[in-house]
Amino acid sequence: MRITDLPTPSLVLDRAKLVRNIQRMAEAARRHGVALRPHLKTSKSIDVARLALEGQAGGIAVSTLKEAEYFVRHGIADVHYAVSIVPDKLERVAAIQNRGARVTVITDSVEVARAIDAKGQELDHTFHVLIEIDCGEGRSGVYADSPEMLKIAELIDRSPKAALAGVMSHAGHSYGCRSLAEIEEVAEAERAAAVTAAERIRMLEIACPTVSVGSTPTALHARGLEGVTEMRPGVYMFGDMFQAQIGSCAVSDLAVSVITEVISHRAPLGRLLIDAGALALSKDRSTQDTPNDIGFGLVAGLDGRPLAPQLHVGKVYQEHGQIVLTEDTPADSLPVGARLRVYPNHICMTGAMYGEYYVVDSEHGDGEEIVAVWPRTNGW
Amino acid sequence: MRITDLPTPSLVLDRAKLVRNIQRMAEAARRHGVALRPHLKTSKSIDVARLALEGQAGGIAVSTLKEAEYFVRHGIADVHYAVSIVPDKLERVAAIQNRGARVTVITDSVEVARAIDAKGQELDHTFHVLIEIDCGEGRSGVYADSPEMLKIAELIDRSPKAALAGVMSHAGHSYGCRSLAEIEEVAEAERAAAVTAAERIRMLEIACPTVSVGSTPTALHARGLEGVTEMRPGVYMFGDMFQAQIGSCAVSDLAVSVITEVISHRAPLGRLLIDAGALALSKDRSTQDTPNDIGFGLVAGLDGRPLAPQLHVGKVYQEHGQIVLTEDTPADSLPVGARLRVYPNHICMTGAMYGEYYVVDSEHGDGEEIVAVWPRTNGW
Repeated sequence: MRITDLPTPSLVLDRAKLVRNIQRMAEAARRHGVALRPHLKTSKSIDVARLALEGQAGGIAVSTLKEAEYFVRHGIADVHYAVSIVPDKLERVAAIQNRGARVTVITDSVEVARAIDAKGQELDHTFHVLIEIDCGEGRSGVYADSPEMLKIAELIDRSPKAALAGVMSHAGHSYGCRSLAEIEEVAEAERAAAVTAAERIRMLEIACPTVSVGSTPTALHARGLEGVTEMRPGVYMFGDMFQAQIGSCAVSDLAVSVITEVISHRAPLGRLLIDAGALALSKDRSTQDTPNDIGFGLVAGLDGRPLAPQLHVGKVYQEHGQIVLTEDTPADSLPVGARLRVYPNHICMTGAMYGEYYVVDSEHGDGEEIVAVWPRTNGW
Repeated sequence: MRITDLPTPSLVLDRAKLVRNIQRMAEAARRHGVALRPHLKTSKSIDVARLALEGQAGGIAVSTLKEAEYFVRHGIADVHYAVSIVPDKLERVAAIQNRGARVTVITDSVEVARAIDAKGQELDHTFHVLIEIDCGEGRSGVYADSPEMLKIAELIDRSPKAALAGVMSHAGHSYGCRSLAEIEEVAEAERAAAVTAAERIRMLEIACPTVSVGSTPTALHARGLEGVTEMRPGVYMFGDMFQAQIGSCAVSDLAVSVITEVISHRAPLGRLLIDAGALALSKDRSTQDTPNDIGFGLVAGLDGRPLAPQLHVGKVYQEHGQIVLTEDTPADSLPVGARLRVYPNHICMTGAMYGEYYVVDSEHGDGEEIVAVWPRTNGW
């Protein structure tokens, strides 16, 4: 099967680019002397996980318990569930751990730390806990210098059924950076917050083995990661148009695109429609706030090369995407039935609409033959 | 099982509200003397379809061929695939028709009309075709008064393997209206475009049995639908915050919401996090351009009543939703673990993230007991 035979819209993954992106991040982790714990919220695929884990310690991060269940079922034994745990999800965590894996949960709450202790005793089951540190994003986490942070550490440390795994921070605000210097600064704040928290915990003579940081931009551009033990970036494997805008990758690095077809022409209005709309691309508009807004996706030919001058999907309806044509791309060069690739703004959002990747390889093949089909695990 | 036992996030459907919304649209169709062909792109569920088809002729509209396959497999025999057909999808259409159903396709293209004829002869298979008329939205369609429109009608009529089913128009631009008077005007443009096209075709002594219009706002608020034979609204069954803003329904009519849980507190920052983020709610921001912007979703208690003063999800991350608290809703009224309902902007987008509906009934039950689980068919 070739990409010209795929139903449209479909999600296509270029294995050669994926492997190069993985190697680049592995090299960044080596350079910093920290472990790489790939975050699999973007790919949600065991096949991608296996490539991302080559040469690594074997631990992963996930964003849903469904992902945790899926990856453990496929043999992964060390999982960070990197979204604030809630007491009523602990039984599900215990069930996964009973299959022989460790699922480390995170919290930023004294009340939840107490509930973890209570639930651990009730179930006679040990939970592994990371304290989430807010390094400036203002989303979740406690401040490294707060009394609450130490209180949580003490509660977990004292519990017979909870084990303090360490601390973690996430510099999601690196996505707001528009220069490498800004990213370096945020990366340093992320590092400093996690390391400060760990040092304060250790001053209480409580062990704090893991000091975890992570976001693709900060992992790639940190000046140094002294005191950090691991990083957990995710989107680096695929890249997307937003990451390309903030300097995490080039457009030619993007490993995942949507294959679509021209379905209608409005030549007099200077535009055409494709069968990739709001569901196929997502309504993410993250490049809107960058110097280079590409609407809902950058349009490329089947060979993956963007069509000049930056042809893009300007508007989406549920199943229709609208492309405004220019002089460089006249309507008759893209007849009804012509196939295109679209690179979306935010691949975590777009990927979630698809049940599988159709895998091509632009290095060990012509980039248009389907060499594998890899399933994804969506939902909760 | 009760909604307090559901995994979060989950999609909850109130059957009593669904039935009332369906009855309201059925009454509108009766009032106008037209058939109701429910568009199932929103619900993607045979269980919802069965309720929507009670007392109707039995035809439906869909937005993907996967939906067409699913509904035909579940016994529906008359399907409009309401997105521009492309020649290489015709074999899939033929395969569905070979199961005993009729799948009517739509086109706005002379070239595609020729390709339908050719493919019909190649496969020795008859395709049923509606001509799509642009009634002012500027998305897809030909103009009712254009020579291309008649050319398509002639090509289909002359083909031994294509049958002209009629014409259809879709007033998607009714979503841009901000008053009932504006919606009435757009509804009249939608009606007039379809009827004009049908009359022009009939002047060529070509039969044009179907004159189809449809969008939830125009179906509800049209002054009259003279000359129209059917309407195909979709979102009316569920409603959403955007439809509530443009007057299609009240917030108390919304049949579908997302059940979520408070997962983290940032009391000093006056906000909290829930486990319904960009994937659970979608990044649709359609209320942004209405007088009443509710961010990514309106927050309600488990009883479905919005929390004063219009508490809403102001920001989303992949799996986190952020709610800014107010004096009326202090942090301690919503502790970690508290369950909430969120009404999203655009239910077609939000629904697509879930594999099933957990069904409750606020009329024949307490609205919190799960009385059924209905699957959805997502993807392509």
